[in-house]
Amino acid sequence: MNKAMQALRDVERQLFALGYAEHTIHFDDATAAPRQSYPGRGQALGALAEMRHRLLTGSGLPALLREAEAGGLDAQQAAEVREMRRLYDETACIPADEYAAFSQLISDAQNVWQAARADNDFAAFAPWLERILEARRRMAGALDPGKAPYDVWLDRYEPGMTMEKYDAFFSLLKGELSALVRAVGEAEPVRDDFLSRAWPLGAQRALSRELMRRIGLDEGHVALAESAHPFTIELYNGDVRITTHYHEHDMTSNMFSVIHEGGHALYELHTGDALRCTVLASGSSMGIHEGQSRLFENYFGRSRAFLAGLWPRLRELFPAQLADVTCEEFYRAVNRCVPGLIRIHADEATYSLHILVRYELEKQLMDGALAVRELPGAWNAMMKETLGVDVPDDAHGVLQDIHWAGGDIGYFPSYALGSAYAAQIAACMRRSLDLNALLEAGDFAPINAWLCERVWRHGRALTPDALFANACGEAFDAQHYIRYLKEKYAEIYRL
Amino acid sequence: MNKAMQALRDVERQLFALGYAEHTIHFDDATAAPRQSYPGRGQALGALAEMRHRLLTGSGLPALLREAEAGGLDAQQAAEVREMRRLYDETACIPADEYAAFSQLISDAQNVWQAARADNDFAAFAPWLERILEARRRMAGALDPGKAPYDVWLDRYEPGMTMEKYDAFFSLLKGELSALVRAVGEAEPVRDDFLSRAWPLGAQRALSRELMRRIGLDEGHVALAESAHPFTIELYNGDVRITTHYHEHDMTSNMFSVIHEGGHALYELHTGDALRCTVLASGSSMGIHEGQSRLFENYFGRSRAFLAGLWPRLRELFPAQLADVTCEEFYRAVNRCVPGLIRIHADEATYSLHILVRYELEKQLMDGALAVRELPGAWNAMMKETLGVDVPDDAHGVLQDIHWAGGDIGYFPSYALGSAYAAQIAACMRRSLDLNALLEAGDFAPINAWLCERVWRHGRALTPDALFANACGEAFDAQHYIRYLKEKYAEIYRL
Repeated sequence: MNKAMQALRDVERQLFALGYAEHTIHFDDATAAPRQSYPGRGQALGALAEMRHRLLTGSGLPALLREAEAGGLDAQQAAEVREMRRLYDETACIPADEYAAFSQLISDAQNVWQAARADNDFAAFAPWLERILEARRRMAGALDPGKAPYDVWLDRYEPGMTMEKYDAFFSLLKGELSALVRAVGEAEPVRDDFLSRAWPLGAQRALSRELMRRIGLDEGHVALAESAHPFTIELYNGDVRITTHYHEHDMTSNMFSVIHEGGHALYELHTGDALRCTVLASGSSMGIHEGQSRLFENYFGRSRAFLAGLWPRLRELFPAQLADVTCEEFYRAVNRCVPGLIRIHADEATYSLHILVRYELEKQLMDGALAVRELPGAWNAMMKETLGVDVPDDAHGVLQDIHWAGGDIGYFPSYALGSAYAAQIAACMRRSLDLNALLEAGDFAPINAWLCERVWRHGRALTPDALFANACGEAFDAQHYIRYLKEKYAEIYRL
Repeated sequence: MNKAMQALRDVERQLFALGYAEHTIHFDDATAAPRQSYPGRGQALGALAEMRHRLLTGSGLPALLREAEAGGLDAQQAAEVREMRRLYDETACIPADEYAAFSQLISDAQNVWQAARADNDFAAFAPWLERILEARRRMAGALDPGKAPYDVWLDRYEPGMTMEKYDAFFSLLKGELSALVRAVGEAEPVRDDFLSRAWPLGAQRALSRELMRRIGLDEGHVALAESAHPFTIELYNGDVRITTHYHEHDMTSNMFSVIHEGGHALYELHTGDALRCTVLASGSSMGIHEGQSRLFENYFGRSRAFLAGLWPRLRELFPAQLADVTCEEFYRAVNRCVPGLIRIHADEATYSLHILVRYELEKQLMDGALAVRELPGAWNAMMKETLGVDVPDDAHGVLQDIHWAGGDIGYFPSYALGSAYAAQIAACMRRSLDLNALLEAGDFAPINAWLCERVWRHGRALTPDALFANACGEAFDAQHYIRYLKEKYAEIYRL
């Protein structure tokens, strides 16, 4: 390895340690920290962000990156240099004090948002959102003054994506999915009365363990915790945390959260050992990551085959709740399509329409066409137009998600993209694996081996485009997603 | 504030963030991390230690410290400079790679120790202990080549302490406490049959909350978690974590762990706001810290007055277990004196004799008079001589404590010192407060205000000697401790 590359590795190792620290602090924040302890956490995160800024801007990176390239690099090292340059560019264009202030801002804003949502008080959160949007616009201008600010952030979350591409993607979805949801609305509803029964928490907890085991998560390396909102956080490829939440009158929330977060966790656990402590040691992009979680949650977890295999255990765990329910009824119920208010409760057919609303509003907020004070009204109008639902209050509307409070503008669209990625990956996989038989047997070893070889082990070494070519031997095509949803719902609702 | 002092504050803020990160990682390690996830954690902690080393050695501190002093300092700033110089000296004398390697070594050694204790396999741990002792001797030589290595570390944990002072202290304890324990052994035992009854875990958990509330811990700023061994870790004065462990057949273990760790937590929660993010924002020394925890656990928690006040609630929580027990019997049982094998289960009269064994062995290990392979034999012989007990195996002997695996050589003696500090603090407090009445009423506000004013709020701004003068208006005197133990046990055992 050339000398400059060795020096880069030293910087990468320090970035790893800072990231490890920040991720542990975030996990702790959501699972264990006392209620009123955030001020010190915000200060610590601000100082750590400042240290990252100093590390990236004070280590002579531009020269080191050039020298490393001139010295000759293997494929992984070249990818490390590409990612380091990306990190350097997005850091060096922002002054250190602004970088630290932003970290503090989003730490505080998330606490304000939490209270605002509890109090149904958008006005309390509005000034924070304004400051965040303003900061994100300013940062985007510094990063790439030739681009529209929203395009800058879309590309950061999903390399290669732009408003032009997303506009085409969401336009296709809007046409096809709106028609599908309308048709389902006119069909006979599926039976779902049993879903709101009382599902004992002890048995729900046992189900979480069963699901983790079944999809191939090793509890020696994955811990399950509880938090208000389920999430996954990776520390390294030998330590990933997932969280879930339990509701007595809704067992599906926990069940599919565990499988969803489990998909994220499997990805992180299977990034290659050679990538450890480098900037490549994580998922390729937000969209590819969401592709893995949706693949597990929907394409595997909500499949008839997987549920058939799980059925005897479900009957054991919930004998009273499932006494008068058939496996087929359970399958249809957990795949029912009902337009609703809350994104995280949305079914597969309406989910991307929830994302579409956020995409359109983010676009307008970022280019100034929409003012923050007009946001609740615009949200409610667009929810009515897109999903046909009346939003009763902001807590069930514009305040429902933490993302904007966390500074993530441009992140949402990658959720819809991930769902579409997953459809194509599942279709590719079916060419070489008898997926239904494996899912029914709960035999995830061949499935995970397929994904590990083609997707997981590469971490960030491959960009989304390259990864897609590698995994499927073809470019991304949203038609797989449309076809999958139409076939699935036509069958369930006998359209 | 002068310019150099401003620059020092910036270094302090980064040290705060690194410490915050490390403490969160340690808390997570003991309470939430998956079983087999330590390698990445060790790497991250190693890299963070290296960053601290770079920060302390690469910020031009020697010149900054001189300039800050020349520019004029207030009392707090002068104390910050004193502590920063101490930190600089102990860091700069060790090369960066050795500093990081040591952090990695103790992270790994603690995992090895855990397995060795479970397997009762001292030989597995011995090479790690040898490496730790060797590293500590080498570091001590670099830090102060004119001093005996053990003296260097005694002073690091408890500023001002030496083998000479500890020899005198332990010699006094050995004579007085051995005689006391012998006399108790010849007296009629107290009734303790009920202690090993089955104590429902739900009620034990409710008792933890009750105790936290009673001694004045605000759960908005203190979280209680579970871990193999109880401990306290502070993140800042608005966020402290304590842990406990529950045993169905021993309710006293949890009960007094919560009060003990609660004492540590109260100290950290009441360090002054002006000290936040500086090197003074923590307890003054290990001994002073242990003084607070022992004060709460023994002098308050095990007092007749406190238990009388708690008695109605104890009867409510454990109606069956306490049906045939009087408060006086409970008081005597939780204060019974029985020489045993395990330090953390030891009563007040024998506790410091357990520490004495460790002190004598550490002294010999550090000066080379005792080889690591001879340690189990020496341990067992000294336990027999000092406490009259036969050690059945190393798991219940030399392998029982994590401290040496964590690199802490010279820490144990501060436990005994803390117990003695607590006796004197309680005696001082009685001069101005009606302690028994307050303890019985569960009214900790005046007690905590007294401690806050004289001890807690000063953090590390005052050294142990100065703190003692401030708190009690007199120098430390171990006779308070001897007198307290003799009076207490003479009364309980009618000696």
